[in-house]
Amino acid sequence: MLKNIRIVLVETSHSGNIGSAARAMKTMGLSQLYLVSPKYLPDEQSIALAAGADDVVRNAVIVPSFEQAIADCSLVIGTSARLRHLQSSLIEPRQCGKLAIEAVKCGQKIAIIFGRERVGLTNEELLKCRYHLTIPANPDYSSLNLAMAVQLICYELRTAFLQTTPVSVIDNSVMSPQHLATAQELEYFFAHTERLYQSLGFIHNQGVMSKLRRLYQRAEIEKNELNILRGMLSAVEKRLISVDNNS
Amino acid sequence: MLKNIRIVLVETSHSGNIGSAARAMKTMGLSQLYLVSPKYLPDEQSIALAAGADDVVRNAVIVPSFEQAIADCSLVIGTSARLRHLQSSLIEPRQCGKLAIEAVKCGQKIAIIFGRERVGLTNEELLKCRYHLTIPANPDYSSLNLAMAVQLICYELRTAFLQTTPVSVIDNSVMSPQHLATAQELEYFFAHTERLYQSLGFIHNQGVMSKLRRLYQRAEIEKNELNILRGMLSAVEKRLISVDNNS
Repeated sequence: MLKNIRIVLVETSHSGNIGSAARAMKTMGLSQLYLVSPKYLPDEQSIALAAGADDVVRNAVIVPSFEQAIADCSLVIGTSARLRHLQSSLIEPRQCGKLAIEAVKCGQKIAIIFGRERVGLTNEELLKCRYHLTIPANPDYSSLNLAMAVQLICYELRTAFLQTTPVSVIDNSVMSPQHLATAQELEYFFAHTERLYQSLGFIHNQGVMSKLRRLYQRAEIEKNELNILRGMLSAVEKRLISVDNNS
Repeated sequence: MLKNIRIVLVETSHSGNIGSAARAMKTMGLSQLYLVSPKYLPDEQSIALAAGADDVVRNAVIVPSFEQAIADCSLVIGTSARLRHLQSSLIEPRQCGKLAIEAVKCGQKIAIIFGRERVGLTNEELLKCRYHLTIPANPDYSSLNLAMAVQLICYELRTAFLQTTPVSVIDNSVMSPQHLATAQELEYFFAHTERLYQSLGFIHNQGVMSKLRRLYQRAEIEKNELNILRGMLSAVEKRLISVDNNS
């Protein structure tokens, strides 16, 4: 199960950190590493610091954009030290472990994203995450290095995994993953919404879209629900076009 | 309380590891570092890797023997990958956190000991520990480096510590209730949605409304979000009316 959880590192500045993160992952049984446009591609230093986890480095998937790293995932968790606007979606490592293992048991694809060494994830990236993960570090000195953060989160994933009982055959309380909208489907919906409501003069800036993103991320939208929401946008568009044609 | 828990590193081979361990400690609020006859005394590399935790390195207590590092402690916990003869006293990091915080609350002095990078603690040293702490790593690759192990244990100490404080600082599961939309406000929103989309010919029966209700109930909508959703409905209505008037 741990192999179905993807660790995504965004624009790492040091190739050594890729190796250290890979080592941290492997000690906890994870192996799926995605790199979003790393400043330096994996090199000898990555392999050296990976120690016996060089296979994780060699199998890393390198993608040019954040969106490509999460496109096929239905649960996206972003790490962040910034708490202010994210209260309702904020989780700590222990919750993260439980949530991710629950989701992976249902066959979901999960991405846990770690931001740039100095500046973390951008606000735009954070808006694409369902949950925001923060490590409850010492407020006077919260400077965990990247691989240390990866180590802690992978440790909580492993601990949650070891604590799970075998999956019961039927569990009605959980949705099967194919019912959930993927990150990419959500992006299409957001783009569609923004386009229509800009044309209606309702959306002038990113503030409204940020709030809508937060709302719909939280709702964990199913595919059939997303179809309805898309249908509503199209219904408005069709009416406007037919009215334009008749006038 | 965390300041009363001592981290002891026995005969470290690399001075860098002293710095990385100090940084890991400080991120979790620990500061008391003991070094048992390190192969290399703390040096520039230790300070460099400590980053902003150089105070922990500078204040480290260096002692010539294991016994001196633990002499005044009433609870001694030794880390070990070796399980064979230690079953009865074996604990995992989570238990370690709880035990140590319980003890420190009673005013005990506590030492948590990390062995040599390659070979850990000797059997003789392990026999002087009350508990034996093992990290539940991947059995196929259990090679955590020293500072990573320190990071995990200090994280569990901090987590146990934060759980003992009476008031939890953040409670994610509840938002302050005045921020949430009331049932009546939600009803107005649903009625508004139904009216508009019936007039657009999108809603023919209750099936769609049931699905939308389920979605928005699940999202636990806040008042400000509901205002946006109502505003979007009004924006569509206004455009339709102005188009009707002009045609």
